[in-house]
Amino acid sequence: MNFTKKHLLGLEDYSREEIHCILENARTFRAVLDRNFKQVPPLKGRTIANMFFEPSTRTLNSFLLAEKNLSAGSINFSAKSSSLSKGESLRDTVENIEAMRVDMMVVRHSSPGAPHFISQHTNAAVVNAGDGPHEHPTQALLDFYTMGEHFDSFEGLRVVIMGDILHSRVARSNIIGLKKLGAEVTLCAPPTLMPYDYSDWDIRYEPDLKKALEGAQVVNILRLQLERQRHGYIPSLNEYHQLFGVSTDHLDILDKKHIIMHPGPMNRGVEITSRLADHPDAVILKQVTNGVAVRMAVLYLLSQNLN
Amino acid sequence: MNFTKKHLLGLEDYSREEIHCILENARTFRAVLDRNFKQVPPLKGRTIANMFFEPSTRTLNSFLLAEKNLSAGSINFSAKSSSLSKGESLRDTVENIEAMRVDMMVVRHSSPGAPHFISQHTNAAVVNAGDGPHEHPTQALLDFYTMGEHFDSFEGLRVVIMGDILHSRVARSNIIGLKKLGAEVTLCAPPTLMPYDYSDWDIRYEPDLKKALEGAQVVNILRLQLERQRHGYIPSLNEYHQLFGVSTDHLDILDKKHIIMHPGPMNRGVEITSRLADHPDAVILKQVTNGVAVRMAVLYLLSQNLN
Amino acid sequence: MNFTKKHLLGLEDYSREEIHCILENARTFRAVLDRNFKQVPPLKGRTIANMFFEPSTRTLNSFLLAEKNLSAGSINFSAKSSSLSKGESLRDTVENIEAMRVDMMVVRHSSPGAPHFISQHTNAAVVNAGDGPHEHPTQALLDFYTMGEHFDSFEGLRVVIMGDILHSRVARSNIIGLKKLGAEVTLCAPPTLMPYDYSDWDIRYEPDLKKALEGAQVVNILRLQLERQRHGYIPSLNEYHQLFGVSTDHLDILDKKHIIMHPGPMNRGVEITSRLADHPDAVILKQVTNGVAVRMAVLYLLSQNLN
Repeated sequence: MNFTKKHLLGLEDYSREEIHCILENARTFRAVLDRNFKQVPPLKGRTIANMFFEPSTRTLNSFLLAEKNLSAGSINFSAKSSSLSKGESLRDTVENIEAMRVDMMVVRHSSPGAPHFISQHTNAAVVNAGDGPHEHPTQALLDFYTMGEHFDSFEGLRVVIMGDILHSRVARSNIIGLKKLGAEVTLCAPPTLMPYDYSDWDIRYEPDLKKALEGAQVVNILRLQLERQRHGYIPSLNEYHQLFGVSTDHLDILDKKHIIMHPGPMNRGVEITSRLADHPDAVILKQVTNGVAVRMAVLYLLSQNLN
Repeated sequence: MNFTKKHLLGLEDYSREEIHCILENARTFRAVLDRNFKQVPPLKGRTIANMFFEPSTRTLNSFLLAEKNLSAGSINFSAKSSSLSKGESLRDTVENIEAMRVDMMVVRHSSPGAPHFISQHTNAAVVNAGDGPHEHPTQALLDFYTMGEHFDSFEGLRVVIMGDILHSRVARSNIIGLKKLGAEVTLCAPPTLMPYDYSDWDIRYEPDLKKALEGAQVVNILRLQLERQRHGYIPSLNEYHQLFGVSTDHLDILDKKHIIMHPGPMNRGVEITSRLADHPDAVILKQVTNGVAVRMAVLYLLSQNLN
Repeated sequence: MNFTKKHLLGLEDYSREEIHCILENARTFRAVLDRNFKQVPPLKGRTIANMFFEPSTRTLNSFLLAEKNLSAGSINFSAKSSSLSKGESLRDTVENIEAMRVDMMVVRHSSPGAPHFISQHTNAAVVNAGDGPHEHPTQALLDFYTMGEHFDSFEGLRVVIMGDILHSRVARSNIIGLKKLGAEVTLCAPPTLMPYDYSDWDIRYEPDLKKALEGAQVVNILRLQLERQRHGYIPSLNEYHQLFGVSTDHLDILDKKHIIMHPGPMNRGVEITSRLADHPDAVILKQVTNGVAVRMAVLYLLSQNLN
């Protein structure tokens, strides 16, 4: 297909075909990662600004490696060091970075919609690397890539997303994308960690862990932000673990063919037991590797449509 | 001309011819910035240490991009992380960095003269990226480059520099350079933000905004450091804006052909109105782009004279 | 010789031949550092993560330059920014970084044995860049390289290590390596800064400065961690200087042919006088240059044995 998108702000704007196009391109880059020589030339001479207004290690490093592997030049721009702390507006900051002839901006921000706002004030291609509780599209794409390694089709694939749906941009991007791909999504979480209204999504909510997991093919376990307890969303970590923690004991009730996913970083002993995290059915580290490949594919495809 | 300088510590040491030489070389690099492939080879295999003992985003990113575009290798060295915090002297720090075979050092420091001191203890080429209230030569050079895009000659060019002259290294470097280039410089600022003695400079001081702007061709508006108010230099931001803020209302009293400049980051609504900042006569983002080109030219020319 | 090691966790695991192999390879890279064009291709397309869980400027910059000179791609990973601050285990952090297809990890950590632990959970090559008071093998190797520039053989070489032996990973790695190379090592320190039991090492301890220095060929002066005074290890900096500070006055009692070394950063006027630090017999800055070459050799040799 002819990929015409200039930004990746969220999966909401992407069609099923566009999602498949990214996943197919990622396959080539995934093969590059298994070579000793991991550098390929497509973004040579291009510059990318990683604008992380919220701290991050994992996602930032994954993007940085993707950029290096594609031979791009990168600059990093953290919240603290930025002119924003001198009272400059986000728009002025963005226009300045663009004026330095940056081709692409990878943006993480605590405010939903910040990457969208930025994309309206720059000719650079914008990639959303997580905007508040809104979307985290490259995480969802790497999840889909990993599912695609284990299942032939997304059509009717039974996916359970476990945990803090309310605050999770990973959950939102997964749900939006999986619906487009034709999967059957079940959410499992305490009512306090569910969005107030999820009727738009037309998905199943099942608060009982065992009922939710029955026959599931993919279990995607979200990280529990430990500070949620302090804010009263859950009674205690221990009780959360008892009711919503997934362990190897649950493997039997899943479909015979199944995978266990987690976007990391994990709280071993809270949302997932240590034994399950290290179990062969868990594909958590594969997700991390695929993340670099998927980000290479996203940057590569968007760069094709730069002015 | 034969460019023989090894350091750029300030415009004080530079001749009119040397300044013109940098501006001419910058033209080639400015063209590179409009290409998709922005990398050129002249500094390949060279290493540059960006030694920012004072925080900076804008200038640091501009230098970093200039270095990447020239294919140099860069290391960054911030105040906090440095051995200086372990009590090491600046001289020992510099000699150590040099001993690692760094070819060039880009230095920002809060003490006037620090880059000069450093240049005496290293064989590396030293570029002053701002030393306290002393000089900020690359900012002045990018300002001149931008003026040169709009006016045929600096001879007799009527330039007004507005605002906090007292604390501004941008103002100092501009004044020194513009005098060498033959421009007619007017300073406009409240008396509290003027240097105690500026008679050396042989320039006009006009505290009245309207009188200062009359017939001006270039208006260079300095950032007001907001903490100045706390220290009693100005009665209030609002009163400063009333008396020294520049707006689109002032465009009529300028020369018919004029440009509005600002080194950024801007305080919209203080020294410049938001409408003026976004007006077509403002060349503020052009300055940012030209900054990368001018820094490429400076690094390139100095690298020619490395041992 | 055939270099078969995959990690450099400490000199404890290295044979005399392996140490010599690194030093010989470093000679080639040392010559590269004197060229204008300092980039060589052996690690092109490889990626290295610099995982500094303890702050560092000098060692980090030395590794970064070594990596750039070898054409490797680098990512930096500091303690503060890491997912460890989100409660993730070190093992999970390491497995994640590895999953991003990083080939080598350069690790500094405050816990002795951390690089060893990491090497057990990754296929990447691991280089110890300092683990608590345990080892700092690349520092010792650069010290040996520098000794080798001035003396024909390590056999019987009379080396004095001065200062805080108890807490010093530099001392430990030096002692272990020098014993393997056949040098005669004397330690000189106040009893409070000596290890409780050093009988394993089979070396001489001489608390009297003058007796220790008599006939010495190499004097390696350790940095005194200034916070040691607060913790009661020494009565006062002044008294330490009187009893254990080395000055040009001591040069006469050394062997006629001698060198003065210091791993930096120096406390001028405490463990070493300023005059001695700047004396021609001091090879302190040569050590810094050699450090880049030795680290290039280590990374190059280990990279040969990557899967």
